[in-house]
Amino acid sequence: MTKRNTKIITLTSDFGLDNWFVGTMKGVIKNINPNAEIIDITHAIRRFNIRKGAFILLNSYQYFPEGTIHLAVVDPGVGASRRAIAVKNKRYYFVAPDNGVLSYALNQEQEFKIVSIENPKYMLEQVSSTFHGRDIFAPAAAHLSLGVELEEFGPVINDPVLFEKSFPKKISARELIGHIIFIDHFGNCITDITMKHIEETVGKNAANRIKIKIRDKEIRKFSNTYSEGKENELICLFGSSGYLEFSVNKGNANKQFTLEEGGEFILKVL
Amino acid sequence: MTKRNTKIITLTSDFGLDNWFVGTMKGVIKNINPNAEIIDITHAIRRFNIRKGAFILLNSYQYFPEGTIHLAVVDPGVGASRRAIAVKNKRYYFVAPDNGVLSYALNQEQEFKIVSIENPKYMLEQVSSTFHGRDIFAPAAAHLSLGVELEEFGPVINDPVLFEKSFPKKISARELIGHIIFIDHFGNCITDITMKHIEETVGKNAANRIKIKIRDKEIRKFSNTYSEGKENELICLFGSSGYLEFSVNKGNANKQFTLEEGGEFILKVL
Amino acid sequence: MTKRNTKIITLTSDFGLDNWFVGTMKGVIKNINPNAEIIDITHAIRRFNIRKGAFILLNSYQYFPEGTIHLAVVDPGVGASRRAIAVKNKRYYFVAPDNGVLSYALNQEQEFKIVSIENPKYMLEQVSSTFHGRDIFAPAAAHLSLGVELEEFGPVINDPVLFEKSFPKKISARELIGHIIFIDHFGNCITDITMKHIEETVGKNAANRIKIKIRDKEIRKFSNTYSEGKENELICLFGSSGYLEFSVNKGNANKQFTLEEGGEFILKVL
Repeated sequence: MTKRNTKIITLTSDFGLDNWFVGTMKGVIKNINPNAEIIDITHAIRRFNIRKGAFILLNSYQYFPEGTIHLAVVDPGVGASRRAIAVKNKRYYFVAPDNGVLSYALNQEQEFKIVSIENPKYMLEQVSSTFHGRDIFAPAAAHLSLGVELEEFGPVINDPVLFEKSFPKKISARELIGHIIFIDHFGNCITDITMKHIEETVGKNAANRIKIKIRDKEIRKFSNTYSEGKENELICLFGSSGYLEFSVNKGNANKQFTLEEGGEFILKVL
Repeated sequence: MTKRNTKIITLTSDFGLDNWFVGTMKGVIKNINPNAEIIDITHAIRRFNIRKGAFILLNSYQYFPEGTIHLAVVDPGVGASRRAIAVKNKRYYFVAPDNGVLSYALNQEQEFKIVSIENPKYMLEQVSSTFHGRDIFAPAAAHLSLGVELEEFGPVINDPVLFEKSFPKKISARELIGHIIFIDHFGNCITDITMKHIEETVGKNAANRIKIKIRDKEIRKFSNTYSEGKENELICLFGSSGYLEFSVNKGNANKQFTLEEGGEFILKVL
Repeated sequence: MTKRNTKIITLTSDFGLDNWFVGTMKGVIKNINPNAEIIDITHAIRRFNIRKGAFILLNSYQYFPEGTIHLAVVDPGVGASRRAIAVKNKRYYFVAPDNGVLSYALNQEQEFKIVSIENPKYMLEQVSSTFHGRDIFAPAAAHLSLGVELEEFGPVINDPVLFEKSFPKKISARELIGHIIFIDHFGNCITDITMKHIEETVGKNAANRIKIKIRDKEIRKFSNTYSEGKENELICLFGSSGYLEFSVNKGNANKQFTLEEGGEFILKVL
């Protein structure tokens, strides 16, 4: 990718929409690059929940046109010593605090280059200690969209904060411990188990012999869609992001069964 | 309409904004047509509430430029047997599941052509069974915005799911039973009664002699604006969509009087 | 500014996003000017809270490109006698009800011209008495973005509703009474005290000798960032908009200490 073939900047944050933060960032971007196109992914990440931000990016970034700049600001350490980074991989750019929010997306990629954003030329004139979204990250994304080279922003770094995604753990020949990693708007509980995990650890074609045990509940119904399953029956299926999910047909798995993000369960193949 | 004169795609869904669903759909659209312009109508429909989606579309679709493509995904049957449809009428395009979500908009129109979206050429390569918004509907809208003809998507169908809007019922020479069909953000309760219903059933110039009876409450104040009426007084007026509404000046009719969507009331002309 | 150098229209309202109001306004704008670019600031102002709308505009409007048209609809008096106004100052345009929602932004500016929007040519054909956002304000903003001169909309007025921002009050040589004017998404409590107020009333370099007394709590920790301060410790800092704020590191100052918008406190310099 040597030339910008898109002017799209996506925004992901925990800023909420009941204030001027997101609007102000958009003003800053348009002021620097009037041709930038801004698309919101979400601003409703629970505040400071870096892993949730990372998971949301993971599930969306690859659907955007090559050259898209993904800006993610979940930033509990704003103003403290954490770095601000800009990243380029084969297909995308990213701008974010160096706190792991890009981890899951970058784990997918073979190659990437990361710089620490330090050049004041690409920041607002006044940098506050509390709103780097406006003063550092939005300007960096806007300048990237104008074609400024990554290296212009600051020195290359090789030690970004990258954390591992939660992984299921094999505990016996036919058993895995999995984790709930995201509960969506509909109450569906997304886990860290993919078909590949099941095949690698408990064998091919095992999906139809799955039994899930979460605390005192059991799931035996394996479905293809959310609309299977009887009333109030907890079912499992592989969702659109490729992960095993728990769901209730026209119900809310999360509320009906008080499941929690981070919660563990045992997957057993019969 | 033989040529596309707009690249606008509107989005209406029950996906919420606290996840990657809407952002991902936008990425898919921009990836297929970089010139598409995407405008959100709402993503906060109570989930699976098809009628509410239909009513929101009804009140907004006609304000957009000719040629706009309205994409509506309220889709409890995703992955099951319901069809996906694309529709063209004299002025607009629509893309949606075939579950009635387009009913109220299409009821307004004299002529329209509907096809069942079946051509995999206009879907993502991998179609999940749970996220057709991303895999089928967003690509269809994007291809429509590129100028692909409706018939390219699949066979014409003549039996779409279309349901009737709620209608008031005449119960005597001077009485109608009406229904609350939408409670807005401000607590205003929108009913299914229009001026035309009143004129046709209980006579012209009857608006000023209206008395409303909802359970144990009575409304006698007929207003022109929300800012009439005393503190805590329930008033009625014809709102911006042409329907009779119940409202409380600077108050919340819904909360103060625990009215409900679907609730009945009697309108009597004195 | 003699020529429009931007087509950006920002939207600020209390309409919420669970209905068709904002989407419909966008349709109206694009129907009049297909090249307009619409950017949301917020639609989640607590309803009818004009001062909150004014404060949100104050903190965002200046970050947008010169020529941006800021449309703000917080409008408890819709349909009653309040005027609709369009404003031009050296750098921006504004469109709003004449109820003070532009006060804080206009207080910043030396010069501005205000007209009362009265020319039906720049309204929708049918003007409802309850949704001027759609019927009057959105069309006015769209026509402004097409280059229509301010004076075309109606007569110049010199008596707009402008209210003063809340100001801190000096009560002794070393003491100010301040007010909480905005509580943000993170629970940070923004006050009406700026560094300038402190310097002018209690002397230069006083910031480090500040003690705050709010009801039965005391704040002695003056920080540069949100991430200072011990667990559950209430700290104060100058935020990104230049105002003194109260905050709790990774906590929620608002909830932990039940502070309120409008609440008073005493700032004492030791």
